[in-house]
Amino acid sequence: MKVIALQNEGRANLRMEDRPRPVPGRQEMLIRVAAASLNYRDLEIINGTYHSRFAFPLVPLSDGVGEVVEVGADVTRFTPGDRVCSTFWQRWIGGTFRMAEVGYQRGGPIDGLLAEFALLDEQAAVLAPTNLTDAEAATLPCAAVTAWQALVSEGRIKAGDTVLVQGTGGVSLFALQFAVASGARVFVTSSSEAKIEKAKALGAFAGINYSEVHEWAGAILDLTGGRGVDHVIEVGGPRTFGQSLAATAVGGQINVVGYLGGTDGAINPLDIFRRQVQVRGIPVGSRESFEAMVRAIEVNDLRPVIDRRFAWAEIGDALDHFGSGSHFGKIVLDVATSGTPDAQDPMVR
Amino acid sequence: MKVIALQNEGRANLRMEDRPRPVPGRQEMLIRVAAASLNYRDLEIINGTYHSRFAFPLVPLSDGVGEVVEVGADVTRFTPGDRVCSTFWQRWIGGTFRMAEVGYQRGGPIDGLLAEFALLDEQAAVLAPTNLTDAEAATLPCAAVTAWQALVSEGRIKAGDTVLVQGTGGVSLFALQFAVASGARVFVTSSSEAKIEKAKALGAFAGINYSEVHEWAGAILDLTGGRGVDHVIEVGGPRTFGQSLAATAVGGQINVVGYLGGTDGAINPLDIFRRQVQVRGIPVGSRESFEAMVRAIEVNDLRPVIDRRFAWAEIGDALDHFGSGSHFGKIVLDVATSGTPDAQDPMVR
Amino acid sequence: MKVIALQNEGRANLRMEDRPRPVPGRQEMLIRVAAASLNYRDLEIINGTYHSRFAFPLVPLSDGVGEVVEVGADVTRFTPGDRVCSTFWQRWIGGTFRMAEVGYQRGGPIDGLLAEFALLDEQAAVLAPTNLTDAEAATLPCAAVTAWQALVSEGRIKAGDTVLVQGTGGVSLFALQFAVASGARVFVTSSSEAKIEKAKALGAFAGINYSEVHEWAGAILDLTGGRGVDHVIEVGGPRTFGQSLAATAVGGQINVVGYLGGTDGAINPLDIFRRQVQVRGIPVGSRESFEAMVRAIEVNDLRPVIDRRFAWAEIGDALDHFGSGSHFGKIVLDVATSGTPDAQDPMVR
Amino acid sequence: MKVIALQNEGRANLRMEDRPRPVPGRQEMLIRVAAASLNYRDLEIINGTYHSRFAFPLVPLSDGVGEVVEVGADVTRFTPGDRVCSTFWQRWIGGTFRMAEVGYQRGGPIDGLLAEFALLDEQAAVLAPTNLTDAEAATLPCAAVTAWQALVSEGRIKAGDTVLVQGTGGVSLFALQFAVASGARVFVTSSSEAKIEKAKALGAFAGINYSEVHEWAGAILDLTGGRGVDHVIEVGGPRTFGQSLAATAVGGQINVVGYLGGTDGAINPLDIFRRQVQVRGIPVGSRESFEAMVRAIEVNDLRPVIDRRFAWAEIGDALDHFGSGSHFGKIVLDVATSGTPDAQDPMVR
Repeated sequence: MKVIALQNEGRANLRMEDRPRPVPGRQEMLIRVAAASLNYRDLEIINGTYHSRFAFPLVPLSDGVGEVVEVGADVTRFTPGDRVCSTFWQRWIGGTFRMAEVGYQRGGPIDGLLAEFALLDEQAAVLAPTNLTDAEAATLPCAAVTAWQALVSEGRIKAGDTVLVQGTGGVSLFALQFAVASGARVFVTSSSEAKIEKAKALGAFAGINYSEVHEWAGAILDLTGGRGVDHVIEVGGPRTFGQSLAATAVGGQINVVGYLGGTDGAINPLDIFRRQVQVRGIPVGSRESFEAMVRAIEVNDLRPVIDRRFAWAEIGDALDHFGSGSHFGKIVLDVATSGTPDAQDPMVR
Repeated sequence: MKVIALQNEGRANLRMEDRPRPVPGRQEMLIRVAAASLNYRDLEIINGTYHSRFAFPLVPLSDGVGEVVEVGADVTRFTPGDRVCSTFWQRWIGGTFRMAEVGYQRGGPIDGLLAEFALLDEQAAVLAPTNLTDAEAATLPCAAVTAWQALVSEGRIKAGDTVLVQGTGGVSLFALQFAVASGARVFVTSSSEAKIEKAKALGAFAGINYSEVHEWAGAILDLTGGRGVDHVIEVGGPRTFGQSLAATAVGGQINVVGYLGGTDGAINPLDIFRRQVQVRGIPVGSRESFEAMVRAIEVNDLRPVIDRRFAWAEIGDALDHFGSGSHFGKIVLDVATSGTPDAQDPMVR
Repeated sequence: MKVIALQNEGRANLRMEDRPRPVPGRQEMLIRVAAASLNYRDLEIINGTYHSRFAFPLVPLSDGVGEVVEVGADVTRFTPGDRVCSTFWQRWIGGTFRMAEVGYQRGGPIDGLLAEFALLDEQAAVLAPTNLTDAEAATLPCAAVTAWQALVSEGRIKAGDTVLVQGTGGVSLFALQFAVASGARVFVTSSSEAKIEKAKALGAFAGINYSEVHEWAGAILDLTGGRGVDHVIEVGGPRTFGQSLAATAVGGQINVVGYLGGTDGAINPLDIFRRQVQVRGIPVGSRESFEAMVRAIEVNDLRPVIDRRFAWAEIGDALDHFGSGSHFGKIVLDVATSGTPDAQDPMVR
Repeated sequence: MKVIALQNEGRANLRMEDRPRPVPGRQEMLIRVAAASLNYRDLEIINGTYHSRFAFPLVPLSDGVGEVVEVGADVTRFTPGDRVCSTFWQRWIGGTFRMAEVGYQRGGPIDGLLAEFALLDEQAAVLAPTNLTDAEAATLPCAAVTAWQALVSEGRIKAGDTVLVQGTGGVSLFALQFAVASGARVFVTSSSEAKIEKAKALGAFAGINYSEVHEWAGAILDLTGGRGVDHVIEVGGPRTFGQSLAATAVGGQINVVGYLGGTDGAINPLDIFRRQVQVRGIPVGSRESFEAMVRAIEVNDLRPVIDRRFAWAEIGDALDHFGSGSHFGKIVLDVATSGTPDAQDPMVR
């Protein structure tokens, strides 16, 4: 089978290579990958800027979907023909994050989905939502589960709540969709009027262009009658955190899920006390969260937003596009056997 | 001012009478009642079949809405001109039901809203949803808060959950609307195809005619792929409880809110163990629940279903209609000063 | 290796037999069993009265402790020399009971611990508390985790709460110990003054002899100033449930964990509504619950109560003693290689 | 009656004065104050360094206990002779902090307990624990409820958890006692070996002298096997927050309750994400929390630690002692009528 493996840090070290097709162990299964998708973590791992280092070669990408084609002797959760998504934390079945067992993340250190076939532990897969295409289902494991964990599993969002999502990246758009489906009111920040309009088309109540309104907390307070929002999806990191704090209601929740604005900056932790808010990190989520999210996607026929699809051999182009920040929605890699480039040309674009 | 007061048990003992307009104490306020609505408890109190007895005369009806016209010296939560709903438990501000303080229920023993003016403790009122008419807002305090408490405050409903509501009474229709707004899938039972169609128009996914399908738990299991529902609004009492148990998913929740099917019947409590479900009573809800519900109503522009409106002097006709069981939605009494019947005729219809 | 296996329903069908020592698969490990303990479920399975039937031969007993002697290639949670307890639900790592996956219970259908060696999935084991002997640690997987799940994981017991434990069986005594360690006040029912005294020595605040006080709910109300208890460990089944309901505080919780009083009887489910309590079944608990419980046992140096120890070949005598109901505390089977009876005599007592 | 009132900012502006004894309104009651106690907030209000300013004259001190001597016409929760504690938030009965209604804190802006008699709303009082003296009961409303809210109401502490309390101030000592009563293991930091020994006598497992071990997070990690603690009572503010973060377990909780180390300093909020912890402010707690705490105090016979008692006219000396930081435990003011200084000398020491 073909896989695209990272031989060393740096995008230039992605190589398509031939490997023997693996045989599933007793509780494992082999899936034929149909599609995979990109997350910011994948970009960092490939670029060598991720905070952890993994052994090479590494098949990247935590997210994907495929069909079960072979199961180990003791597998009971799935049968061949099932269409499944990978989970990010192989061992986080349910309960708190303490059960996740660091070292079992897919896409590093465990080989990821940028391959014709992948081995999944039967505990590390969920049935893909029946209403989604392969490309759509491939986008769920990391970004969507993070949004669900923040707003639903931890945040216990309820109808009538207010939510602030920063920007229009993967986690933010899923958070927007889940919040709207939950009967909440969503505000979005962006530097692009066009993206704000697209977010409104997805159900956002209002948008704030932060390239015009730098101190956007005030705008959020105005839009909420001075109350502030109940939930914040904080993806900007230290540089936006101060505004998030100021925009949050008494008793509100700030979910720290990323640092797209950089990692430098500081806050006075007393402001958490003064505003009486709750702040927490969100480390993706458990399989139980994923399964609950699948039911929500099916019941509400939610469709992930896909910005663009690439053939998997075009991973380099896909990474360029992702890195440009111009996208609105997820970037998908189609991994079709028939689309495999000629084995004579092991370079990937 | 005019009030309609129950002089003794029995509908014939409802009398319209003149009383001096009360003066609010330091933390009280006087509201000019615009509308009130009927609940099954009111019917029982008036008929003398309620499990508690109250002192007479009693102004009945726990639910209503009005405009603040005068406030006590220490009132800070409202100002004249505010439009407020009464709360059912005068002292249940927040927290568990243990904080409710039995003896402070409106409509008995505390005088209710079937009056031109009513005194409310400022802690026992909430701003009416801005998107609702007076008639709509009058329906909220008891039935809607019960549904919200069951599904949201206690049940922590989330998108993708499944809900079974029994019948189309007040609590059930509010539960249907809140569940749909929360992204859940709702099943409804009824003996009337017409009511099932109306419930579907409100967003129900499917209905089961229990006059045709007596053992409807099987139908629910079929409709949920064998899984059962996550939440049940049990209004039938002992006679439907067995079906509810059989229709509930492992880990699901049965909210016992009424006994419209009668009070006789029995279950084997081991079935709660065998099905691994959770069963609890729902005693309306706190003011904090009410306020959260108001935000959900506003954000999602939910409109209570009103079956029919009566002038308040037609309370007897309204009770007849309510007792007939033919209604779909709430029954509202319009309490307008200009509509006050001639004081020479103190009999109410 | 020797195992004692049930060849068919009925105690007479327990046979000690020789089996090849199993080789752990990639995520499995082999433990040398040091001790096992009895639960009521084991008795039912052996007697053929359990509600499920399993394939024979079956090595019985879900509970035990042993030393890891060999690990599969991919095992990371344990290393040889670790002392571990088995878990009841092999796949219930964390989260709600929906994650438990029926069919993976130890002691049936999965082979149990009445053997010199046992294979455990590395996900289905926890480090035994360091402060306990083997015999003590062997008692934890089923009864102790059930008590912990009821009072702590689900019940969120807090200092100052009141707890009623019925009788002095395994779950009840663990519940007593956990409740006392949590700062709660515990009441116990028993038909034996001697057992009540022993329970008091463990920290119970008061005991009620139900052979003298049949309607013991009134006694509980008296002992709690009319308030009732916050938590009930209901092990009697339908026959005691009515008293439990009457003895529970508004908002209290009744945990249905057994039916030692028989399976017949009925309640009016409206009483759950009238008392405004919460009733739920407790299906043992997750590994995350088990691990939290181990920390509590270590921090508070809690010691399980052992009634009597038997050599594992004396399983018949142990079952007789267990069935007699005269015990106070757990019954342990010592499974020591050196103590293995002569292989020429495969009959077990 | 005599009161000690703050006429303006600054300790020199405390004056004992005569006022007419107030008459309770319909839901109010008059208590004869027996004792009051000091909190850091009181010191700040008196010194004029508190972040809010209140109208003068102001009777300071939020905390105290007294006997009900007169009740308003509609009071039902108490009767004369009851011994009650004041609550900090007059209107926070239960539920989330959003129900607290800013502006109703006792000791500012509402007159406090440094008076012979005080008016309490019947909703703003709880029965004092029966096992405590007046001096002990006077210490509960602010510091003890804060500790309870942090560890129990919000933190859901359970047996086996680990807790870090910073220093030996009022909140920290109550947190230590509640945690020990809950079966948790407690670590304490202090700059004094003598105070560490006293904390151990109260049940602390270990202490760290931060004047010797500046980077005490490492010591905490060593003491917890590298795991970190589950709960932190953070009273130092920005200067200790970094160490708290480093000492907290994955999924642990940091309760920000004060800033005794000053208000300057900064953290990188991404560290909250990197450590996957939860951070929140604790604004004292609700009356429901207070009442649950009272039960815990009674059931476990917990005795608040009193450092020293002063006659109420010695408020200046008491403030000096409090400000010196040498105390271990609460500082109590005895407010006994017979102990009232001569009215000819209105100066207080």
